[in-house]
Amino acid sequence: YKKDDSFGNRGMSFEDDINETNDYYLAHEFAVIHKKPTPLQIVNVHYPKRSAAVVTEAYFQKPSTTDYNGLYNGYYIDFEAKETKNKTSFPLKNFHDHQLTHMERVVKHSGIAFILLHFAYHGEVYFLPAEYLLRFCETMERKSIPKVEIEEHGILVKTGYMPRIDYLKAVDTYLATRNK
Amino acid sequence: YKKDDSFGNRGMSFEDDINETNDYYLAHEFAVIHKKPTPLQIVNVHYPKRSAAVVTEAYFQKPSTTDYNGLYNGYYIDFEAKETKNKTSFPLKNFHDHQLTHMERVVKHSGIAFILLHFAYHGEVYFLPAEYLLRFCETMERKSIPKVEIEEHGILVKTGYMPRIDYLKAVDTYLATRNK
Ligand SMILES: [Mg+2]
Ligand SMILES: [Mg+2]
Repeated sequence: YKKDDSFGNRGMSFEDDINETNDYYLAHEFAVIHKKPTPLQIVNVHYPKRSAAVVTEAYFQKPSTTDYNGLYNGYYIDFEAKETKNKTSFPLKNFHDHQLTHMERVVKHSGIAFILLHFAYHGEVYFLPAEYLLRFCETMERKSIPKVEIEEHGILVKTGYMPRIDYLKAVDTYLATRNK
Repeated sequence: YKKDDSFGNRGMSFEDDINETNDYYLAHEFAVIHKKPTPLQIVNVHYPKRSAAVVTEAYFQKPSTTDYNGLYNGYYIDFEAKETKNKTSFPLKNFHDHQLTHMERVVKHSGIAFILLHFAYHGEVYFLPAEYLLRFCETMERKSIPKVEIEEHGILVKTGYMPRIDYLKAVDTYLATRNK
């Protein structure tokens, strides 16, 4: 893995990078994958004359699913993106129960569910299949996944300029192994 | 088609009925289909001490995709739900360009895209494949689809108590024809 300097430290968040990657995939007709809007409970809306409606009171809701889903080559794709500053492990408190339940359902209905993990310190992104994450959460009492385990069971994602986080290549690698 | 009296006139919106149907599908492990949150551009958030963050200024954004997507039996599912009080046709102004573009992409990438049309006056719901809608929008100069065309090219959806709008049966019928 040769670290590409065009990725990281550009004042962009991991989420921005994924969104740009999805825009790239969309423009090049590789996939149709979007981030879901942030779920808000709208309590008050003001309708001024001659201008747009304004939401004046709303509260953030816990998402019941993951942040990204879409379609790639006939496959249903579903993932969550998370990052950590930890050097040697990924804390599991980052995942809510309902997100794990959702990923379990996706796997059961023959979709492709995974997480993209950004180790900010190392500038590395890993694709980790939901099957592995779910098995780890079930059987382990540890509160985090060691990075060495992620390196072994995940797939390192190529990062760069265009696309920034080329996770579909990792999906291909995953499918090649799974369908064997 | 025998109209079921438990559907319609219960103070519930068409959208509520679809959401309940999706809850039913989820609970019975038939499918994993969710409504996407309403996209809002958040401008101001207030963080009071000792209580939840409040969004105090936000604006409604035009959705770039359809309202519902998910996974059914390994298939990527994507649809928009619309209703009309018209008796004999469905106005096309209900569909935005970006929604049509999105449905076109889904079809191209081998997903299942469709619309659910509710004729409120008749208490009827139709499944109409995106392929037909897109062809109609391209070739026709008319501003609405006549109901007789929808009856011919669409599939009448069974409505009732549980699930309220059993559109997956129509998906099955559609797939049986498409895969023939
Ligand atoms: Mg998230
Ligand atoms: Mg809509």
